Amino acid sequence: MITNNYYSQEVHGPYESHDIGNFELEEGGTIRPCKLAYASFGKLNAAKDNAILIPTWYSGTNKLLEQVYIGPGRALDPEKYFIIIINQIGNGLSSSPHNTPAPGGMANFPKVRIGDDVRAQNKLLTEKFGLHSLALVVGGSMGAQQTYEWAVRYPDMVKRAAPIAGTAKNTVHDFLFTETLVDAITSDPGFKGGWYASCDEVREGLLRHAKMWAVMGWSTEFFQQNRYKLLGFSSLDDFIVNFMNGYFSVMDPNDLLCMAWKWQRGDVSRNTGGDLRAALGRIKAKTFVMPMSSDMFFPPADCKAEWLLIPDAEFRPIETIDGHLALFGADPNALAQLDKNLKDLLAAKV
Amino acid sequence: MITNNYYSQEVHGPYESHDIGNFELEEGGTIRPCKLAYASFGKLNAAKDNAILIPTWYSGTNKLLEQVYIGPGRALDPEKYFIIIINQIGNGLSSSPHNTPAPGGMANFPKVRIGDDVRAQNKLLTEKFGLHSLALVVGGSMGAQQTYEWAVRYPDMVKRAAPIAGTAKNTVHDFLFTETLVDAITSDPGFKGGWYASCDEVREGLLRHAKMWAVMGWSTEFFQQNRYKLLGFSSLDDFIVNFMNGYFSVMDPNDLLCMAWKWQRGDVSRNTGGDLRAALGRIKAKTFVMPMSSDMFFPPADCKAEWLLIPDAEFRPIETIDGHLALFGADPNALAQLDKNLKDLLAAKV
Repeated sequence: MITNNYYSQEVHGPYESHDIGNFELEEGGTIRPCKLAYASFGKLNAAKDNAILIPTWYSGTNKLLEQVYIGPGRALDPEKYFIIIINQIGNGLSSSPHNTPAPGGMANFPKVRIGDDVRAQNKLLTEKFGLHSLALVVGGSMGAQQTYEWAVRYPDMVKRAAPIAGTAKNTVHDFLFTETLVDAITSDPGFKGGWYASCDEVREGLLRHAKMWAVMGWSTEFFQQNRYKLLGFSSLDDFIVNFMNGYFSVMDPNDLLCMAWKWQRGDVSRNTGGDLRAALGRIKAKTFVMPMSSDMFFPPADCKAEWLLIPDAEFRPIETIDGHLALFGADPNALAQLDKNLKDLLAAKV
Repeated sequence: MITNNYYSQEVHGPYESHDIGNFELEEGGTIRPCKLAYASFGKLNAAKDNAILIPTWYSGTNKLLEQVYIGPGRALDPEKYFIIIINQIGNGLSSSPHNTPAPGGMANFPKVRIGDDVRAQNKLLTEKFGLHSLALVVGGSMGAQQTYEWAVRYPDMVKRAAPIAGTAKNTVHDFLFTETLVDAITSDPGFKGGWYASCDEVREGLLRHAKMWAVMGWSTEFFQQNRYKLLGFSSLDDFIVNFMNGYFSVMDPNDLLCMAWKWQRGDVSRNTGGDLRAALGRIKAKTFVMPMSSDMFFPPADCKAEWLLIPDAEFRPIETIDGHLALFGADPNALAQLDKNLKDLLAAKV
């Protein structure tokens, strides 16, 4: 185990933790016990039909999602809905390499798949809250992967689905991009095969990882139009060091790698023997597919191809030059489009 | 010095080498002596007005350019033109870190700029061939950077210019992408600050560098449409190891870094005190600006913004899903578009 104050109640609280017991994973490992950290907002109504689930993206946590997406008057309005953000396994708040005691932690943490997260989340929602219906599952990036997995795996439970900037089946190109992120971390001699004594030892690998995120995470237009200066950074160096690296460098390398492995292999067609058409055909949720127009690794074309296979779906790309990381919410115009779409979706009869 | 058979006459010949003497560089260093390797095709006519210059891209050499772009019936037809490909400084065939004797070689090799290349090439063409007119300068990527520099620096000499998949002033985003390529190599402990005993010691860094090229060099559509399989590779691994890494792993790491530093800082506005409009306004050449439609780091939008500043220019993007590396010529449709454009340009009165 590694002590890391970033994953504390001070930084991310208030959040709760629910123990779902020993949890067997698709790849054969077991997390003993598996704990899911979550934060909830608003009240569950008597009919238990006003629940919204938000799964998290790579590196994402409940706090950022709360700050960017939830609020009175917003689509995700805690005055109308019971909103629950569940941190994905490996994100540092739920069971993760860095917070799992020896011998199962650190580099020994077992391989986790998107399907494991969704089963674990289902266990939490049914056991703890007695939920059997979700008005909406909405998530970005790896959160979109989980959203698709939810809609395919529990088609009767998910009434509406909003996968943002993500795919149901990861692409070859995206797998490769993620591989370069993994390489950036594991190639640092300080990583020591995952047995570093402190995250600081992997400082250089984390910096390379942050730079690569800067290249692919935004867009060429984002830099050409000096968006990074508009966001308050004086130079490219300032932006890399104090924003990109500032964001990632506090995170645990093994935790990031746990999520990256999962991200690379996201694929709802594992539920249907590799048949993507059959998997997406299972979806009963009213679905809005929302890629970011300038996304360099979950590009609209890839999302559109999947949209065509979903029975009741609309394709609603978000126009922005903030690329994939428009998810961070720095483009108010992108957020406004997302809010409008989510309001439309929540208003739709199902 | 490092012995590297990749840069030999057996692999790249026949090529000539011209010694331009001690060559002072913009950044203050001197190459003693500076040798330019070149290959020429066809005959210079009596009027000396049928010469075409092709500068090389990052990692590119005369042989690949010859194979992909030159031939009877092609736009670059040796039966009509005297075509000369000059290898850029640092590419391993011209003076480069790996082939420069101690103490000025390896990591001590001085910093070179695009402007240095163009001055050196001008020296070669005037001294050796008595050329004072170029019917066309055409180059891709860093070759486009050199093409722009030629047209700005020697406006009376360059009659036509065809920058393909490159910019006159490098962008912030492109600088950052190149930085990640540099990091991939320099972070390998085997690189030893540039004092490796053999390229094999930097094998892992070169592999990471090749993977990052695969992510950004092609396009998402290239992978989605299985172009890599159509090119004869059975899997992503096969493509990475036997094509991308096969291509780059034989090259010298210091040579690649010399070119990368130059690439990052390509900027014709250095000729006009930072005024890009003034620099591009100097161009007298009839110019065809030809980005690749799916280029992830020299995107059409960046090239279009520069095209608007060139007095006599046409914007002719090449439609392809092969991204930046359509330059390799694996998409016959992209090559056909390039050939047509170059024929149009060569037929244009100037």
